[in-house]
Amino acid sequence: MYRLFIANKNYSTWSLRPWLLLTQLQIPFEEVLIPFGSSEWHNNPSPTGQVPCLADLQANDKTTVIWDSLAITEYIADDYPEVWPQDKKARAWARSASAEMHSGFHNLRAICTNNIGLRIDIREKTTPALLKDIKRIEQLWGEGLTSFGGPFLAGQNFSAVDAFFAPVVFRFQTYGIELNDTAARYADHLLGLPAMQDWYQSSLAETWRDEPHEVDARHAGHWIEDLRAV
Amino acid sequence: MYRLFIANKNYSTWSLRPWLLLTQLQIPFEEVLIPFGSSEWHNNPSPTGQVPCLADLQANDKTTVIWDSLAITEYIADDYPEVWPQDKKARAWARSASAEMHSGFHNLRAICTNNIGLRIDIREKTTPALLKDIKRIEQLWGEGLTSFGGPFLAGQNFSAVDAFFAPVVFRFQTYGIELNDTAARYADHLLGLPAMQDWYQSSLAETWRDEPHEVDARHAGHWIEDLRAV
Repeated sequence: MYRLFIANKNYSTWSLRPWLLLTQLQIPFEEVLIPFGSSEWHNNPSPTGQVPCLADLQANDKTTVIWDSLAITEYIADDYPEVWPQDKKARAWARSASAEMHSGFHNLRAICTNNIGLRIDIREKTTPALLKDIKRIEQLWGEGLTSFGGPFLAGQNFSAVDAFFAPVVFRFQTYGIELNDTAARYADHLLGLPAMQDWYQSSLAETWRDEPHEVDARHAGHWIEDLRAV
Repeated sequence: MYRLFIANKNYSTWSLRPWLLLTQLQIPFEEVLIPFGSSEWHNNPSPTGQVPCLADLQANDKTTVIWDSLAITEYIADDYPEVWPQDKKARAWARSASAEMHSGFHNLRAICTNNIGLRIDIREKTTPALLKDIKRIEQLWGEGLTSFGGPFLAGQNFSAVDAFFAPVVFRFQTYGIELNDTAARYADHLLGLPAMQDWYQSSLAETWRDEPHEVDARHAGHWIEDLRAV
């Protein structure tokens, strides 16, 4: 049985990836949410102390721990091949795009810090490096949607590559990033998925505040709106 | 047929990973080395313009391009299951450790810039953040070697997780990083592999110099020795 350790849905973009993958593919799992800075953090079995972390509880009372979002994805894919597209070329593309997201886009991550319930004016903080990251995402999405027919990035079905870009979709919403038509349509499609709406509503309902994340959000730009419950 | 695009062996740590994996597992491939800054760079089929990039040339004249080291690894693993350990728990560990390397260890990478043929005194540039990265690597290696019996990180056989940490072994050699006994023994074991020696000798024989990489190496610390051909 899969037990997925995640943190605050409002902040934790890395947590969203495996959670969305499992939820969207209707793979059974137990969610354990530990808020950042909470005294329960030691219950997280990850050796890096980060989230997400997957514990696979086997029948023989042994547990396998997988502590990175991409490793979790490949672990689940061994049990559930629908995690990646079945077509070899689409699968190669999906894995390349996911791995590029996994190790890259540092400007986007650093400048557009994740805070799902906020709307922030980023204009003063926009840099050429940030615009380059956004352009690359538009290019990637366009390539996937064109090559494999959509409406998901690697074809007709939701797969792990959509889960890897889902956090970016929330970032674009928070910062009101203008996208080209193809990218905007894909972002809307992803935001409309019931599992994405579920995560979004849970984010807004959270009343925990983690000061380091709040500091990041204050540095990101002028807050237009704060939709979070108080 | 696999065609692997790489850059200078002396500089390109990311290139080493799939090259070593293919070479060590005796999987046939064609190597295409394009020096950084050379006019041949446009021959690299990667959409990011980076290396490594794998082109899989199929019988029907179609080519699949995979443009990230971890995606390349998983692509090859679909064809050659020996890329990852066959034991499920060892495979989960190997994938987690490889993914942690893929997206992390930023201090080590930024401070100990890769230049295989140099020996550099790093002492003045050592920071707590760098030491933390090194400690984490010692911890990871110790855990793998203890859990799965060695002499490789995930057991008796070389697998992708060894390929992912191979560049770090060269960095430790360049900067004379002191490791605990277990980690030092593993680093020596990896350095002794014929494929690693092959890469090392090729690095030393290269006479190309790429100024951005040389600038990084000059910033890294005092050069004790330059073993590269001139």
